[in-house]
Amino acid sequence: MKNKEEAARLLERLRAIDSERILLARSAAALQWDAETYLGEKGVGYRAEQIALLEGLSHDMLVQNETGDLLAALETDRETDIEQSACGPGDNEWSFAVRRDFLRALGRDYKRAVKLPADFVRACARDEALSQAAWAAARKNNDFAAFAPHLQKMLDNARAKSEYWGFAGRVYDGLLDSYEPGFFAADIARLFTPLRKKLAALLQKIASAPKPETAFLYARYGIEKQREFNRELMEGLGFDFGRGRLDTSAHPFTTTLGPSDVRITTRYAETDPLSGIFSVIHETGHAFYELNVEPSLGASCLGEGTSMGIHESQSRLWENVIGRGRAFWEGWFPRLKACFPAQLDGVTADAFYRGLNTACPGLIRTEADELSYSLHVILRFDLEQRLFDKTLSVDQLPDAWNRAMSDYLGIEPPDDARGALQDVHWSMGSFGYFPSYALGNLYALHFWQRCRADLPRLDGDLAGRRYRDLHAWLRENIHRWGRRLDPAGLLAKVCGETLSEKPFVNYIEKKYTELYGI
Amino acid sequence: MKNKEEAARLLERLRAIDSERILLARSAAALQWDAETYLGEKGVGYRAEQIALLEGLSHDMLVQNETGDLLAALETDRETDIEQSACGPGDNEWSFAVRRDFLRALGRDYKRAVKLPADFVRACARDEALSQAAWAAARKNNDFAAFAPHLQKMLDNARAKSEYWGFAGRVYDGLLDSYEPGFFAADIARLFTPLRKKLAALLQKIASAPKPETAFLYARYGIEKQREFNRELMEGLGFDFGRGRLDTSAHPFTTTLGPSDVRITTRYAETDPLSGIFSVIHETGHAFYELNVEPSLGASCLGEGTSMGIHESQSRLWENVIGRGRAFWEGWFPRLKACFPAQLDGVTADAFYRGLNTACPGLIRTEADELSYSLHVILRFDLEQRLFDKTLSVDQLPDAWNRAMSDYLGIEPPDDARGALQDVHWSMGSFGYFPSYALGNLYALHFWQRCRADLPRLDGDLAGRRYRDLHAWLRENIHRWGRRLDPAGLLAKVCGETLSEKPFVNYIEKKYTELYGI
Repeated sequence: MKNKEEAARLLERLRAIDSERILLARSAAALQWDAETYLGEKGVGYRAEQIALLEGLSHDMLVQNETGDLLAALETDRETDIEQSACGPGDNEWSFAVRRDFLRALGRDYKRAVKLPADFVRACARDEALSQAAWAAARKNNDFAAFAPHLQKMLDNARAKSEYWGFAGRVYDGLLDSYEPGFFAADIARLFTPLRKKLAALLQKIASAPKPETAFLYARYGIEKQREFNRELMEGLGFDFGRGRLDTSAHPFTTTLGPSDVRITTRYAETDPLSGIFSVIHETGHAFYELNVEPSLGASCLGEGTSMGIHESQSRLWENVIGRGRAFWEGWFPRLKACFPAQLDGVTADAFYRGLNTACPGLIRTEADELSYSLHVILRFDLEQRLFDKTLSVDQLPDAWNRAMSDYLGIEPPDDARGALQDVHWSMGSFGYFPSYALGNLYALHFWQRCRADLPRLDGDLAGRRYRDLHAWLRENIHRWGRRLDPAGLLAKVCGETLSEKPFVNYIEKKYTELYGI
Repeated sequence: MKNKEEAARLLERLRAIDSERILLARSAAALQWDAETYLGEKGVGYRAEQIALLEGLSHDMLVQNETGDLLAALETDRETDIEQSACGPGDNEWSFAVRRDFLRALGRDYKRAVKLPADFVRACARDEALSQAAWAAARKNNDFAAFAPHLQKMLDNARAKSEYWGFAGRVYDGLLDSYEPGFFAADIARLFTPLRKKLAALLQKIASAPKPETAFLYARYGIEKQREFNRELMEGLGFDFGRGRLDTSAHPFTTTLGPSDVRITTRYAETDPLSGIFSVIHETGHAFYELNVEPSLGASCLGEGTSMGIHESQSRLWENVIGRGRAFWEGWFPRLKACFPAQLDGVTADAFYRGLNTACPGLIRTEADELSYSLHVILRFDLEQRLFDKTLSVDQLPDAWNRAMSDYLGIEPPDDARGALQDVHWSMGSFGYFPSYALGNLYALHFWQRCRADLPRLDGDLAGRRYRDLHAWLRENIHRWGRRLDPAGLLAKVCGETLSEKPFVNYIEKKYTELYGI
């Protein structure tokens, strides 16, 4: 490389490539959002072609030769010319540290993408579309056998993908690396083994304790009123409706269509208002993370959450640690009761808090309480590992699932629809994703300990529906970094710790011991 | 060209290029639709970048060298190899006639696009964005002077564009050609001159006749009820909600996001229910045209309406000829009255029909009645011509507008906001678009005469809210052709006529003579 002007020019070009591929990917995300919220059923086929084309163009833009050449040229003497290539103050200027992080993140994205042959990527996309459709029908008809060949195909593709990435001997590690960079199966097992033991013991203790009253949670709550309350809640939590939306879809999700356009969805059940409420709090937690990344990173590959586990730490922190807490409902129960006076007649904030925290092992992960939830995840983590180390075959999966449910949660699914077919993830080839949910719980409690220490008035703030200091803390310590820090680096910076199950276990033991008086 | 296999291969490749550029353009349209219906105000800037990128990529895909080469190769011996390249029956096979029409339409799009330098296209897009923003502010502040330099820029760009296209001596003809292929200013003037005379005479006659009762049209009509009625109306007219949507936006529009995804919008005013209703009927008319193009053309450049004038013939046929007709309201008035019993208490279907057809010259084109509407359009057509032949300068425009309003409609705007600043079109550089609206009226009456002759039971069908035969006629004669026929060719095929103002004049004279008993 010649000099700093040349380095600045190359970096500028690389940023342009990166921001264009992200513009395209977010355009595809916008079309996908529309497909899940507003598109008519006869527009689905053409829409799928549009999304595939935009994602393909985004991928092509990333893996073009120029990206590799620019990365290589800038790699050479990063620490010298790049450093000096900073010039002027403008918004568009990045410090040396940001530029270094950008090159690392884009380099990672490039290397992963370029290793996958274009034909293979397209074949995977087609296979996944067929597999998802087959899964939806199989779940509906409780017919695992119909889904089995697709699942096998997804496993084969995932194995191939991981091998392309260079994880030949440790296929599952390669898949985990997609969602939680730097974490291997052995690291996760070291966390999940004691976690499982503690949660199972706690569940067992609770089983014999008297259950709180919960009938009022299953009265009829009009959908229109629920919608109003959820919007008020989301706004009250600090969501800026100038920067996103709340809509309805079959499965709740969060999607980023632009640095100031993050949309969440929820769903409503008339006799289960908590379903909509906790989906809204969960997804709003994801949205806060995306919306509070440093604005100067917004258009680049640094402008999003750093891993699925950290993302889940934000959504589950809001949903559970905050949203299923006593102080939170001291603040919100009066508002909820004003919306539903008949349904909540005679119910106190405390009774509401106790009712919504009832621990009761069930068949379905997405409906699980805070205590048993992680066990559903650990079960999937164990089965995924066995599928990839070939000690479990696809046709053995339903039985293995049912046995594991007995072992972990003490209940056995009556059918595969509520067993091994219940989740969408495997049908899309997303193996290695599940651990993120439980890792999120663990990260969340590390962060929460630090946050409580830094903000002594937090409980009072929550009870008073004041979230300003909490937002400021999360933004400063976590959100603003985007992808600049990897998960372990972020945790080290915020808490000076490495990930452990202990803070979460302490929290959950304390909460449930108190709730059940055991 | 070697042989028919070679021709088939080249054609296949050309179709792939065409359908990809259209996928991209319709993706941009989807993002634009979202921007006008659901996007939060802080997402606008990034969204504009996304739309510009997608439109740019669509344009690049069209003007790539390969398109020109393929067109040239297939041009050479169209009539021989192309003809023989048909093979097999499959859906994806086009007859010789379709292939010939495809090459003609794509060739036209290519030649127009490739003549504009890429830098010029980008500069125009930027200028238009600035101009539109300046116009919105200028209209709000009634400040024509603030908009004048932008309007001058729009005129300069339009002139340059027309010259690139090869209309050096007849700039305005080049602009008209964008919207109504094959029509020159002189052709339109031959229609508009007698049209203006007849309409003005009719308006004058009516001025001294007693006005019908209209107070009931301006009662308070709840928006939610209006929304319900409009949805029922749209569905009743035959719109398939599996293939599109009705939403709300600042200005009503129709947009095609895919062959089975056509969306319309409307707006609601509490004290003017007709505004929402007639927007819905108008836009639904546009939607029917787009949705009923032959499915095998849907993904190609043939899969849309053939011109703005023909498009307006469909929307204005539904809105005015059908929707402001007596039989139509015989069918729908009871439904409307059921929604708004208090507001329409004592009002008969006939009184409603008379009320909604009151002719009363006003300042605003979009609010004009069926009779005076075309005069607003002719006024703009005259002023546009004078702007381009340089007998009128930008700073003289407001006065010229006001004088013309006096001449044409007998009223003078009290300010420019309700005068020369009222429409968005010029601020976007869309000169030559306005005539489409009045041409649409003229086309519509040619088609309607033929349709009535073919369907003797049409009035009874309309009174009974039965639209099946009407849809079948429109689909068979007009819609299914898409862009295969140009406007004059379509009219000749359907009616064996060339465009004349007479059918419309006869219709409007008969209708208003009867309404006002003059």
